[in-house]
Amino acid sequence: MTYLLNNPDEFAADALRGFAAAHPQYVTRVPGGVVRSTATPKGQPALVIGGGSGHYPAFAGWVGPGMGHGAPCGNIFASPSASQVYSVARSAENGGGVILGFGNYAGDVLHFGAAAEKLRAEGIDVRIVRVSDDIASNQPDRHRDRRGIAGDLPVFKIVGAAIEAGADLDEAERIAWKANDATRSLGVAFDGCTIPGANEPLFHVENEVMAVGLGIHGEPGVKEVPLGTAAEVADLLFDGVIAEEPERKAGGYSGRVAVILNGLGTVKYEELFVVYSRIAERLEAHGLTPVQPEVGEFVTSLDMAGLSLTLVFLDEELERFWVAPVDTPAYRRGAMPAVDRPARTWIYRAEDEDQEVPAASQESQELATRIVAALETLRETAEANEENFGKLDAVAGDGDHGQGMVYGTRGAVEAARAALDRGAGARTVLVRAGSAWSEAAGGTSGALWGAALTAAGGVFDDQETADGARVVAALEAAVDAVQRLGGAEVGDKTMIDAAVPYRAALREAFAGNGDVAAAARAAADAAATAAQQTADITARLGRSRVLGAKSLGTPDPGAVSFSVLVDALATFLENPPQIEA
Amino acid sequence: MTYLLNNPDEFAADALRGFAAAHPQYVTRVPGGVVRSTATPKGQPALVIGGGSGHYPAFAGWVGPGMGHGAPCGNIFASPSASQVYSVARSAENGGGVILGFGNYAGDVLHFGAAAEKLRAEGIDVRIVRVSDDIASNQPDRHRDRRGIAGDLPVFKIVGAAIEAGADLDEAERIAWKANDATRSLGVAFDGCTIPGANEPLFHVENEVMAVGLGIHGEPGVKEVPLGTAAEVADLLFDGVIAEEPERKAGGYSGRVAVILNGLGTVKYEELFVVYSRIAERLEAHGLTPVQPEVGEFVTSLDMAGLSLTLVFLDEELERFWVAPVDTPAYRRGAMPAVDRPARTWIYRAEDEDQEVPAASQESQELATRIVAALETLRETAEANEENFGKLDAVAGDGDHGQGMVYGTRGAVEAARAALDRGAGARTVLVRAGSAWSEAAGGTSGALWGAALTAAGGVFDDQETADGARVVAALEAAVDAVQRLGGAEVGDKTMIDAAVPYRAALREAFAGNGDVAAAARAAADAAATAAQQTADITARLGRSRVLGAKSLGTPDPGAVSFSVLVDALATFLENPPQIEA
Repeated sequence: MTYLLNNPDEFAADALRGFAAAHPQYVTRVPGGVVRSTATPKGQPALVIGGGSGHYPAFAGWVGPGMGHGAPCGNIFASPSASQVYSVARSAENGGGVILGFGNYAGDVLHFGAAAEKLRAEGIDVRIVRVSDDIASNQPDRHRDRRGIAGDLPVFKIVGAAIEAGADLDEAERIAWKANDATRSLGVAFDGCTIPGANEPLFHVENEVMAVGLGIHGEPGVKEVPLGTAAEVADLLFDGVIAEEPERKAGGYSGRVAVILNGLGTVKYEELFVVYSRIAERLEAHGLTPVQPEVGEFVTSLDMAGLSLTLVFLDEELERFWVAPVDTPAYRRGAMPAVDRPARTWIYRAEDEDQEVPAASQESQELATRIVAALETLRETAEANEENFGKLDAVAGDGDHGQGMVYGTRGAVEAARAALDRGAGARTVLVRAGSAWSEAAGGTSGALWGAALTAAGGVFDDQETADGARVVAALEAAVDAVQRLGGAEVGDKTMIDAAVPYRAALREAFAGNGDVAAAARAAADAAATAAQQTADITARLGRSRVLGAKSLGTPDPGAVSFSVLVDALATFLENPPQIEA
Repeated sequence: MTYLLNNPDEFAADALRGFAAAHPQYVTRVPGGVVRSTATPKGQPALVIGGGSGHYPAFAGWVGPGMGHGAPCGNIFASPSASQVYSVARSAENGGGVILGFGNYAGDVLHFGAAAEKLRAEGIDVRIVRVSDDIASNQPDRHRDRRGIAGDLPVFKIVGAAIEAGADLDEAERIAWKANDATRSLGVAFDGCTIPGANEPLFHVENEVMAVGLGIHGEPGVKEVPLGTAAEVADLLFDGVIAEEPERKAGGYSGRVAVILNGLGTVKYEELFVVYSRIAERLEAHGLTPVQPEVGEFVTSLDMAGLSLTLVFLDEELERFWVAPVDTPAYRRGAMPAVDRPARTWIYRAEDEDQEVPAASQESQELATRIVAALETLRETAEANEENFGKLDAVAGDGDHGQGMVYGTRGAVEAARAALDRGAGARTVLVRAGSAWSEAAGGTSGALWGAALTAAGGVFDDQETADGARVVAALEAAVDAVQRLGGAEVGDKTMIDAAVPYRAALREAFAGNGDVAAAARAAADAAATAAQQTADITARLGRSRVLGAKSLGTPDPGAVSFSVLVDALATFLENPPQIEA
């Protein structure tokens, strides 16, 4: 259990403050997390790694030369918000683009993805790397769809070293995915962890039993087996991971492996070494050479009782970066080259930036005025349909979708108008509206709508006005972002079931007649039809998945709200309001 | 609890094997523990640090450049034996002498001390540094009598850095004591730890309560207080330690402190950082500057729930060594100077050494023959008195003292005769007899008798014969060793109550008449009288302390057995046997 806390709600924030206070030579607190206390060299890609709190040393403990440039820190076991990720990335980035690295969990995918949309809309090159090493969580042929556990350590270590060695963003992204594709982990749990302030663990494992395939957020594992001896546990982990050993070949992987035996919290060092003693025998018997193996606590889960084994099947390139020096609060190895690392002189603060807007042309300001008007139309539409959306959602969800859409559109209008009043152009107005929608609405649909607006904003700039083609491109980009971020496919009974037909119809109609308003109308009609058709499918993803069966016969509320809002948008485009110059 | 083990009896050995397998670039296993995998540079003092297992990273985790040269590893929470310490020190030592560093606990004092006697008897310069940072365990004016907890980290770090920087043995010893005298710790526990294989923790702390003044071997603390918030716990620890802050002065301690916030096992990193957040505030308010603070797990106690705060009140010299680079399996900082560190080519193995003996002169071999005969007399005497010693011991002890004396003398005779048969001289015969006594007898009295023989051996060499003065010096050295090692004073109702009057009478009588046999007789008589007088005191130390009151009226068995054996020795010296040339 957690013995030491003040206010449970502030536990993660208190811990972050103490962490930063203890390591001023490595990190500086910024809104949303920490960054290196030294400046990112001009043009160097920034490795921004994160996730929820409760996993220390992951992730903040790995910020420093040779590894991370910054870490957004969420609440306990909760993804950082998109605005946290964005904020940390802005502080860390210095002209070389950003790698966003995180374990592959739905919440992290969503929020890091939304932050990426905003950064891209502002012209920053962003690459996303999802660590997916846990073999218990999916089939071998879906390795990149697995969840991330202790593989975070070698993947971020390797890409951090590559960046330190001079890799540009393309190269860093390539190496990060290569490292992830070469990394496999399996874990077992003996008992669960307790969230600070809670009286009971998230789960219990019975005595004499262990849960194979643990997660790092209190997920207890995918099956239970009798508790074995240390050697039997070592064999179980080794056999599981080695089953996915790639073929050895000259010039590639040749039997050299990074090995990480990771304690989740209350399995202590001596126990880990007892297990490693057997792992070392198995490695040798298998003809494998461990390269700087690590035995200790690297990716924890509060006070969870469990451990995991990770192997990285190294080639020469991966090994070079795995053994390279690194110097962070919680992970240090070798001697970093003595290069000059000047102190950081600037950090990003949203409130500073909100006070001013990038210079915009008059044309772009006029376009922005129309965009604000369109957003007001969406807000009115959401308000008028609040009860309708809520009722649809209550059938198989928690009934708050109407409220969420109202909060989101109101937040978007407010932020957009504030930016416009300061003279913002089209891009800035849309990007700020997107962030505000996400924060005001909360939840998955808020994040998706926020990313949609943000991505649309990225298609504009603050100088030129927009022709019809660019408006269509912006709408397409909005749907692209929803698809990228949400990870849903047509047929999953989500907003995507309406958004994809919308995009297709929009593209086709505009290609045919070149009339934006007419194309938007045709697209909105297609969306409305598709939204109604979702009544015929059972939810597999999104808000209705828990009560999937109950959803049959009712259309998906996210698809319906999408179709209703794009209908309002089409009407707006058909009857553009008179704007005072 | 401990989830991962094979055979509980082999837990510590299994863990050590796994530890060494994971860190071949740092450590090599040797009989008794580990040493650096690189050779100790010729003439460099060897820092040999240790204690029981179950405290990782202490102590084996700190073996490497800039810190320890070797670590004898005892069983869980049990001191390494004297032969383990000796063995590791022999492998680590390379002409520069040895610093034996350990936390100040009775078992460690005894066994490290006994090893020191043997090393010294063989001509190796040994210094002992007992870490004693725990303010809960004794008064401020008895700082060096306190027990050692997380202060092990800074003390060994600092002396290791001093040695790396070129300190010789005198200098290293001075700095080690200086570091210890500047170090203060206080801890609290929330729950106990469980020995591998046990079903229940060593102790429990009730919910809503915490035990102040924890030890690191499952000692639950010296008082219980209500469980506080993290900030209150931080204040309690800080207030306790800061009460012993020395005066700040120019050129000395000026308010700069090393800070270690140490988790004992299941208090996790985030909780420690929450506490550190408050500690940082207190440091600042107190005008203190933390120098490279450490927050994590450094001296653990298996899965104990607890934490401790350590401050080292630094001057310029201590700070320089505290911040110096270090590179060990579990403690790394900065960049070690790139000096050549050739691989180790030799390790000490007792069985190799037993096969051969140092060359000895014929005179010394003749003396050795007499020594073996004397040891046989002691064995016969112990056998004749086995029942008597046992009955005395059973009054307030466990009744095994007769058996222990028989086992010890038999072991000593056997080892001495084996060495003699290989041509050993006086020193070698006595030193081997001492080791064998200790190992064969076990327990405190075995260790003390073993050290006595070993120290006596150190007075001889393997070349010259001995005159009466040297025999007397050897007997005095034997008593000195018992006193040094056992830590008892006259009046504590131990063997010392007979040994100290014996030494005084021996010295006085020999100074008067120069006749060894007569002096030994007078001394034996004094010992016999003194031993009988122990019936009038209540035991405060040693084997009878638990049942102290019951011991009143019965003489101390250790004092009696001492007096009986030295009586037999006097008789032997009065009637020297005919030895065949």
